[in-house]
Amino acid sequence: MKQLKGALLFGQSGGPTSVINASAAGVLLEALDNELITEVYAAEHGIKGILEERLFDIRQEERHELELLKHTPSSAFGSVRYKLKDPNVDDTDYRRILEVFKKYNIRYFFYNGGNDSMDTCNKVSKFLQKAGYDCKIIGVPKTIDNDLYGTDHCPGFGSAARYVATTMMELYQDTHVYNTGLVTVVEIMGRNAGWLTAASALANLKGCGPDLIYLPEVPFDLDEFVEDVKRVASQKQGKVIVAISEGIKDKDGKYISEYATSLSRDSFGHAQLGGLAAFLANVINQKLNVKVRPIEFSLLQRCAAHIASKRDVEEAFMAGKMAVKYATSGYTDKMVCFVRDESSSDYKISYELLDLEKVANVEKKIPLEWIDIKNRNVTNEVIDYILPLIQGELDYPFEDGLPRFARLRKVLVQK
Amino acid sequence: MKQLKGALLFGQSGGPTSVINASAAGVLLEALDNELITEVYAAEHGIKGILEERLFDIRQEERHELELLKHTPSSAFGSVRYKLKDPNVDDTDYRRILEVFKKYNIRYFFYNGGNDSMDTCNKVSKFLQKAGYDCKIIGVPKTIDNDLYGTDHCPGFGSAARYVATTMMELYQDTHVYNTGLVTVVEIMGRNAGWLTAASALANLKGCGPDLIYLPEVPFDLDEFVEDVKRVASQKQGKVIVAISEGIKDKDGKYISEYATSLSRDSFGHAQLGGLAAFLANVINQKLNVKVRPIEFSLLQRCAAHIASKRDVEEAFMAGKMAVKYATSGYTDKMVCFVRDESSSDYKISYELLDLEKVANVEKKIPLEWIDIKNRNVTNEVIDYILPLIQGELDYPFEDGLPRFARLRKVLVQK
Repeated sequence: MKQLKGALLFGQSGGPTSVINASAAGVLLEALDNELITEVYAAEHGIKGILEERLFDIRQEERHELELLKHTPSSAFGSVRYKLKDPNVDDTDYRRILEVFKKYNIRYFFYNGGNDSMDTCNKVSKFLQKAGYDCKIIGVPKTIDNDLYGTDHCPGFGSAARYVATTMMELYQDTHVYNTGLVTVVEIMGRNAGWLTAASALANLKGCGPDLIYLPEVPFDLDEFVEDVKRVASQKQGKVIVAISEGIKDKDGKYISEYATSLSRDSFGHAQLGGLAAFLANVINQKLNVKVRPIEFSLLQRCAAHIASKRDVEEAFMAGKMAVKYATSGYTDKMVCFVRDESSSDYKISYELLDLEKVANVEKKIPLEWIDIKNRNVTNEVIDYILPLIQGELDYPFEDGLPRFARLRKVLVQK
Repeated sequence: MKQLKGALLFGQSGGPTSVINASAAGVLLEALDNELITEVYAAEHGIKGILEERLFDIRQEERHELELLKHTPSSAFGSVRYKLKDPNVDDTDYRRILEVFKKYNIRYFFYNGGNDSMDTCNKVSKFLQKAGYDCKIIGVPKTIDNDLYGTDHCPGFGSAARYVATTMMELYQDTHVYNTGLVTVVEIMGRNAGWLTAASALANLKGCGPDLIYLPEVPFDLDEFVEDVKRVASQKQGKVIVAISEGIKDKDGKYISEYATSLSRDSFGHAQLGGLAAFLANVINQKLNVKVRPIEFSLLQRCAAHIASKRDVEEAFMAGKMAVKYATSGYTDKMVCFVRDESSSDYKISYELLDLEKVANVEKKIPLEWIDIKNRNVTNEVIDYILPLIQGELDYPFEDGLPRFARLRKVLVQK
């Protein structure tokens, strides 16, 4: 196979995770050591940085700081939510991308993100192929939602799951301290897939988990919800913890969070922000006349790098490294995916490739047979699936008692 | 001094912290080793457990599990919010307490809590003195609010401060990832003292802190707030992080959170719950037409034992241990307090005693000269004061990737 020599470009896209920068470290450190790769660039704000020709020169960074990216949450080079048009309708952006790639002789392109980002990656890949421009393109998966198709799981999910389970245990301790009733409603991220909310069930392994779990995969009914809480409250001296996915919908597919917003308007008639947890807690308070506490994990669940799963950090790093290895071996138009060895009783993962086309825009949800609908819980299959992903304690770098994030110079390449 | 032999009783009270159980471990482990102490009891739900004669026999617990209390958040024996009446008006509860103390020959009593708990401790101490019942009584301080009078700082504060500063840094990373504006409003605990909100400024040492800090010590004005946010937004590409104490009040002393609740009613006319952050974010959204994100640290800031400050855990443990040492040396009617050696450039603390009467019900706020009112910030004095308290990384015990909390048998003593 003809060996392709040229510059490498890396971009980050979509919502942040605790370990997206670990994948960046994997790509960039591997690239710096590879003889086929001439220059190493990272785009500012993903695809937007390419269009605007804002590229950071990674050779200007200290290696030690790039290593620290493993423990720096969110996207160090900036992220973006930018949907490329259908090239058959408007190929302006694609032609601009080709122009930039040619100018900097970019022959390796890696895009790190979730569903939408893999769609972007796929479209760019197909356009460059059609244009006859030789560039190896590999998608590196990332999402706390764990909803990417074709991979056992996604980097970012394990750490978010560990945060959710750990925090749930801590909350359990806190909310069970008084001899009075309290219904705690915890809202967890995941618009259409309930993986992260399901991770709260891990806390039940230690007797400190939620009593009721509501997932987007199962239609949500407000009256049933009130009855569920009432039943548990009567069994558990009024102390109930509920885990709710932000993406729960009614039987017609309408998000309950929209419903919440439309119901709660302030005295000026302005819609109140956010607050699915607050809305549901309020309903419970009114219907059952009990003390309630709504809690939203909000952004904290996706950026708490200090409690990241060591396995997740290592896998995210490896996903980036393997992307470079595969690309420099000639592979292109693929996403790195994780395959779990089901024949082994120990957890074992291999890093393989999947066509970008297959993964783009397909959402992986929790199989219905893994959900215990009657008891508002998940089955042991879910626990067995998630538990290995949260394993391993990091030797997390602190300085002055605070996280030591990577300090990058971020030198822009002269246009 | 005549040596007093008898049983020891320990109780926990008030809001949980990450390290209240570390003080429990200090008291109980020290007690088990002390020859003057016959039996070792912990009351269920503090003073309520005494009145109801629900006492756990600590000699039934494994030592290893008692050690693990150092890393188990919240109150392992249950907490309570129960205000004792003025004994001159109604001494029923006091007589009952005396009865229970006599029955179990309790000669050492330790109460772990904040302002209200020290008031309880003081009242019980004075009543037993008056009744001529010899019992050594020492208060062990605890509160994330850090508002106890007469002690350099309180166990629980350092860990909560570390949580606040760490999470603020992580949030900074997350909220600065897109090339679009975003105003993040973070609500932090502290009804009348702004210490914990001020701790968010530590994140600015690493360039990842809040732009604006609002404390209960300074009257809050909604119009000024909007102007502040507008000014920072214009300087920082629309990206603003605001740290707000839950206890901010207007110039007439009315809590802004009450104001928020009265303004936001749902379509049924029911007051919406919580949400000072949501309320203020909503105001910004409406007045400045920018994207906003309200975040409440809620209970998480007081129970996240996994990110506790090692120094705080050790000091909380020592506070418990010293209480037993002082009491068995004959001291009574005191609270353990921390005295910082101001003559030393290194951080050095000594454990001393203060009259319970002096500490009960007095709130320690941030001195006004430590607040930079104009810039909505705190001065370096605050940083120098708080920074030593968040130091030290724990070798936190995990099991299956999850926190390993103490597993107590909790054997109730036969009545």
